[in-house]
Amino acid sequence: MEMALAEAHKAALRGEVPIGAVLVNGGKPIAKAGNRTVELNDPTAHAEILVIRQACEQLQSQRLPDCDLYVTLEPCPMCAAAISFARIRRLYYGAGDIKGGAVDNGPCLYHLPICHHAPEVYSGFAETECAALLTDFFKQRRD
Amino acid sequence: MEMALAEAHKAALRGEVPIGAVLVNGGKPIAKAGNRTVELNDPTAHAEILVIRQACEQLQSQRLPDCDLYVTLEPCPMCAAAISFARIRRLYYGAGDIKGGAVDNGPCLYHLPICHHAPEVYSGFAETECAALLTDFFKQRRD
Repeated sequence: MEMALAEAHKAALRGEVPIGAVLVNGGKPIAKAGNRTVELNDPTAHAEILVIRQACEQLQSQRLPDCDLYVTLEPCPMCAAAISFARIRRLYYGAGDIKGGAVDNGPCLYHLPICHHAPEVYSGFAETECAALLTDFFKQRRD
Repeated sequence: MEMALAEAHKAALRGEVPIGAVLVNGGKPIAKAGNRTVELNDPTAHAEILVIRQACEQLQSQRLPDCDLYVTLEPCPMCAAAISFARIRRLYYGAGDIKGGAVDNGPCLYHLPICHHAPEVYSGFAETECAALLTDFFKQRRD
């Protein structure tokens, strides 16, 4: 989660919403990214989507059953579904997201009967720090 | 929807799940694609995501408020959320998807109070043809 937080910090410096993600395969980080929606003009360029696409390209597979994802914020519906499609084994996230999360909030996608694959979910890692980064970022924007 | 169906047919010929999408801007198709998850080793390479990314690159914007999306199948949670993030104006889809859809089935994402932008939704266009393409594809696979 330290590495994911570092990616989130870098995203903030680029003017992006400060969310960071790292994909780990066999204890080794194989992909890391922060949000890049502004830089890439791509609304799908959330940190989670970027690391999944990086890792799939690296491993030449659209499934990542041995990989675990660390992300600073609870994934949105787009990312939560992508995590499921990629068959990611475990999801560790920092802060919960009442407004936009889709794992333990909102649609709770992994609890729907139609969900083909749900990762194991662990939450609350460096929660305060992950959330503070976002709160500070949006506060600065408003000021 | 004719063009989206043509993209779905092409996807089937490539061994991809036969779903096709077209993005229209001011009456003009500006991006079209079929699924490419197998070819690209990318679980996020659904037809809808591909056309959104193409169009955003073309228009150098992460928002497409003047664009309408035509897709042969009801979007999944990943694509439905991406359509919302991209601020797409209208969504026209062919067949409903009881098992994987997230617009009028499953989580019904656009009806959640947390949804920031919901496109106008119109469904049932060439429904039989769109659904038959998928049914035939999966039947052939099983045989």
